[in-house]
Amino acid sequence: MSSPYCISLADVEAAQSSLHGLIHLTPILTSSSLDELAGHRLFFKCELFQKTGSFKIRGALNAVRSLVRAAQGDREQPKAVVTHSSGNHGQALAFAAKVEGIPAYVVVPRTAPLCKKAAICSYGARLILCEPTDKSRMEVAARTVQEKEGVMVHPNQDPAVIAGQGTIALEVLQQALRPDVRVYAAEPCNADDCYRSKVTGELTPNRHLPDTIADSVKTSIGPNTWPIIKDLVDDVLTVTEEEIQQATQLVWERMKLLIEPTAGVGVAAVLSEQFRSVSQEVKNVCIVLCGGNIDLGSLAWLSPPGKGANGN
Amino acid sequence: MSSPYCISLADVEAAQSSLHGLIHLTPILTSSSLDELAGHRLFFKCELFQKTGSFKIRGALNAVRSLVRAAQGDREQPKAVVTHSSGNHGQALAFAAKVEGIPAYVVVPRTAPLCKKAAICSYGARLILCEPTDKSRMEVAARTVQEKEGVMVHPNQDPAVIAGQGTIALEVLQQALRPDVRVYAAEPCNADDCYRSKVTGELTPNRHLPDTIADSVKTSIGPNTWPIIKDLVDDVLTVTEEEIQQATQLVWERMKLLIEPTAGVGVAAVLSEQFRSVSQEVKNVCIVLCGGNIDLGSLAWLSPPGKGANGN
Repeated sequence: MSSPYCISLADVEAAQSSLHGLIHLTPILTSSSLDELAGHRLFFKCELFQKTGSFKIRGALNAVRSLVRAAQGDREQPKAVVTHSSGNHGQALAFAAKVEGIPAYVVVPRTAPLCKKAAICSYGARLILCEPTDKSRMEVAARTVQEKEGVMVHPNQDPAVIAGQGTIALEVLQQALRPDVRVYAAEPCNADDCYRSKVTGELTPNRHLPDTIADSVKTSIGPNTWPIIKDLVDDVLTVTEEEIQQATQLVWERMKLLIEPTAGVGVAAVLSEQFRSVSQEVKNVCIVLCGGNIDLGSLAWLSPPGKGANGN
Repeated sequence: MSSPYCISLADVEAAQSSLHGLIHLTPILTSSSLDELAGHRLFFKCELFQKTGSFKIRGALNAVRSLVRAAQGDREQPKAVVTHSSGNHGQALAFAAKVEGIPAYVVVPRTAPLCKKAAICSYGARLILCEPTDKSRMEVAARTVQEKEGVMVHPNQDPAVIAGQGTIALEVLQQALRPDVRVYAAEPCNADDCYRSKVTGELTPNRHLPDTIADSVKTSIGPNTWPIIKDLVDDVLTVTEEEIQQATQLVWERMKLLIEPTAGVGVAAVLSEQFRSVSQEVKNVCIVLCGGNIDLGSLAWLSPPGKGANGN
C-alpha cells in the first residue's frame, strides 16, 4: 500500500544529509519575559538567522540538489529553475541555483516587499513580475518554464521542498526537545485556508488574495501538503492582524530579534487565550521564527513603545 | 608604587566570579555578508541579548553586589542606590537593586527614550527626571543621595562598574579569540570627547550636550576611565551620524539583530575607510554590540530598504 503522503520520514532524513554543512544550524533562543507572558517555557528556533534570512533555503536547496543529482544519472542537467514566490522562497531558490551554478527565474507579485525583490536580484536570479493573484503567478510561471526550458520548483508543493522544510523538525528534536510532541499550525484569520480545510475536512484554498501583514503566508496550502496537515497537525490556531503586530513588536522589543510579521503569527498563537485553553498540560513549546526579511520602509503599523502583546 | 588605574585585572576577574550564573553568557555571531563589506572576519559579541538589553547589567550588578558584600562586614547595608543615566545603566541598576532587594532611584534626562524610562519603572525603580545636561544630572543625583541616604553608583566612573563592564573582554577571550589583541574605541563625531582627549593628551569632556542618535554615549568619559583609555586603547575612531544610521540598519537587515544605534557606532567604525587603512594586518575583529534598547516609535531616520552601508 502506498503512503498517502508525497514524502516520507526517510525523505526528510535524506534532505538533512544533503543539506549538511550548506546551511546554518540555527540556535534555539529563550526569553524569560516571554515565558511569563505565555505561561509556558518557550523555545524559539531562529530561522531568521538562516541563510537568505528564512527557513525556505532548506526546501529550495534540497530541491535544486535533487535535480542536479538526478541529472548525474540518466536525465539532462536542468537549463534553469523557475518559481513563483512572494519573496522568501524566491530568494532561497535564487541562492540555491547560484550555489549549484544554474540560472534561476523568479516570478514575483509586483506588490511584494521591495527588500525581497532586491535580495532575489542580489543572488543573481532574474525577476519576472506578475499580478498579485494565484492565477497570474501560475500562468506567468508556466510560460517562463516553457520559454527557458526550465524546471518548476514550486514554493510549497514540490516534494523535495517539503522534505527540505521538514529538516527544521529533525533539528529541533536533535537540539533536545522530546519526541513526544503535538504539532500546531498558526495562521492569520485573514488567510485561514488551512483552518477552514481542517474544519471542513476538504482542501479549501483562499478564494481571494488575503489582506495580511504576514506576507509570506498569503498563498494557500495545496494538494501535496494538505494530506500531511490533515493527518499530522493536531490543530490550527488563527490570530488577528492586531495580534500578529503585537507579537512581532514584542519579539523585537524583548528579544531584539528582527523577525518578519509572518514569524509573529506563531508567537501570537502561543500567546492567545485559545492556546492557553488547549494546552494546560503543555510545558515546553517550540516556535519556529520562520524568517526576518522585513521591508524596513513599511513599518507604519508600529505602535508606540511598550504597547506589546496583551496591551502591556 | 600604586597603579595609575582605579581597577586592576584582578578586579575584573573578581567581577566575573561575582556575576557568574546571574547574567547571560551572550553568543558571538558572525555574518558572511558583513565580513565581505568590511574585508575582515567579524565576530559580534551580542550584548543586546544580555539581561536588561545591554551590557550595563555587568557593571551595575557587580557594583550593587560589592556594596552588599561590604555591608556584611562592618558597614551598614545601603538604604538605597542612586544613579543618573541616559537609560541603559538606569535599567541595569534598577534590575540589580531588585535582585539584591534594595530600593533604586534613577535620575533620567526628561528627553531620554520612552522605552528606557518605562523599562526602568518596570524593574521597580523610582524615576527622577532632570534636565538633559551633565550639570543637572549630577546636581539632582547628589540631592537624591542625600534625601534617600543612598549610595551613588555612577554609570561609568564607579570602579566596581568599570570592573563589571570589563568582564565582556574576559568572556570574548574565553570564547576563543586570541589574547594578542589591539583595542579600538569608536565614537560619534558629534560626541568625540574620547577622541579629543587622546589627541590632546588631556581629559577633554564634551562642552555641550552632544546631538547624536547614539543616545547611550552622550555622556563624557571621566577621571577614572580616562587613564585606562589613555594608556590601553590603541586608537579612537570617529564616525558620522549617517555612518551610524547606515551601519545600524545594515545589522538589522543582514543580521536580523535589533541593535540600538549606539551599537551601530562600532560597526560603522569597522566599516570605515579609516579602519581599513589602520588595519591591513588585522584579520579577526570582535565588535561589542552593546545594547538593543531602541525606541521603536522614533525611527524617522530609517532610509529606504537596500540603502545600507556604502550606499549599496
